[in-house]
Amino acid sequence: MTDILDQLETIVWDRKSNPVAGSYTNHLLDSGRGKIAQKVGEEAVEVIVAALAQDRQAQIGEFADLYYHSLVLMADLDITLEDLRRELRKRHQQRK
Amino acid sequence: MTDILDQLETIVWDRKSNPVAGSYTNHLLDSGRGKIAQKVGEEAVEVIVAALAQDRQAQIGEFADLYYHSLVLMADLDITLEDLRRELRKRHQQRK
Amino acid sequence: MTDILDQLETIVWDRKSNPVAGSYTNHLLDSGRGKIAQKVGEEAVEVIVAALAQDRQAQIGEFADLYYHSLVLMADLDITLEDLRRELRKRHQQRK
Amino acid sequence: MTDILDQLETIVWDRKSNPVAGSYTNHLLDSGRGKIAQKVGEEAVEVIVAALAQDRQAQIGEFADLYYHSLVLMADLDITLEDLRRELRKRHQQRK
Repeated sequence: MTDILDQLETIVWDRKSNPVAGSYTNHLLDSGRGKIAQKVGEEAVEVIVAALAQDRQAQIGEFADLYYHSLVLMADLDITLEDLRRELRKRHQQRK
Repeated sequence: MTDILDQLETIVWDRKSNPVAGSYTNHLLDSGRGKIAQKVGEEAVEVIVAALAQDRQAQIGEFADLYYHSLVLMADLDITLEDLRRELRKRHQQRK
Repeated sequence: MTDILDQLETIVWDRKSNPVAGSYTNHLLDSGRGKIAQKVGEEAVEVIVAALAQDRQAQIGEFADLYYHSLVLMADLDITLEDLRRELRKRHQQRK
Repeated sequence: MTDILDQLETIVWDRKSNPVAGSYTNHLLDSGRGKIAQKVGEEAVEVIVAALAQDRQAQIGEFADLYYHSLVLMADLDITLEDLRRELRKRHQQRK
């Protein structure tokens, strides 16, 4: 089964190439890099606030928001999950 | 081949159960939830600054830092990648 | 003439003691410390994004938002501008 | 007595015009706008984490850090405290 992160990436990059009316992803991509980066920052702030409070489901939801908005910012920057995984593998091997 | 994110998660959770002297992950886990959350916030800020500058390799590096520190905060909160993926799948199905 | 920061502080603390229907400050104070802290974080993110773009008036506006929301969070924490100034004076003297 | 914020502003702008070896303000100004903006973001994250924990003195310290680094970023952007106060006064009058 394909990883949901890869599925989301496929959708986000497809929206980037073939915009769909009413798509939230296209709304974000159209708002410009500054606004997308701002959303990633806001979601990280929500992760922090949720992490220091107690509601587990809210915490999972905020991490999901952070990952999704990161995928959109990566798409906007032409960075793929594979680019990210390559970097993580490289660091992981260096630490071995 | 196992996803590098899952491999990293396995390592982070193993460090949590079996601390290793000199491990950066254990250093983070020992610093307390506030400090780990702070690192996630700082990495998000570095993602923003890198996204608005031009160096592609720095951008990938900052996303890698953000994902890694998010994994540590998730481990500290007993949240797994599978919890995150379940939430992303749920949202993805609702949007269909 | 009294400093506008002190005037704003007086208003924010007065709203805290004597809530006014429809006041944005009371809306913030009622939303809880987590939400107020989140707003400060979001405003800082907007300061960063504005600082790295070019529009000077937007930059000033984002700093104004950051200072105002900081004053609300300080009021929520029972920290006054005088507490802040005392700390800044102390550090300033140590550096002399 | 002059406001400590104005005193700090005077020092920061003087350091900008007349760099002093070993000055932390000059170190920041030399590191570039991205790094200064990043520091403001990091200090805001520290304000959030401190606000949600309990130590009052740490909270005051983090607000002081946030205000100081904001002053440096404002100096880097050629924005004065008077620009900020004018904006705050304008908004305050509109709300009356």
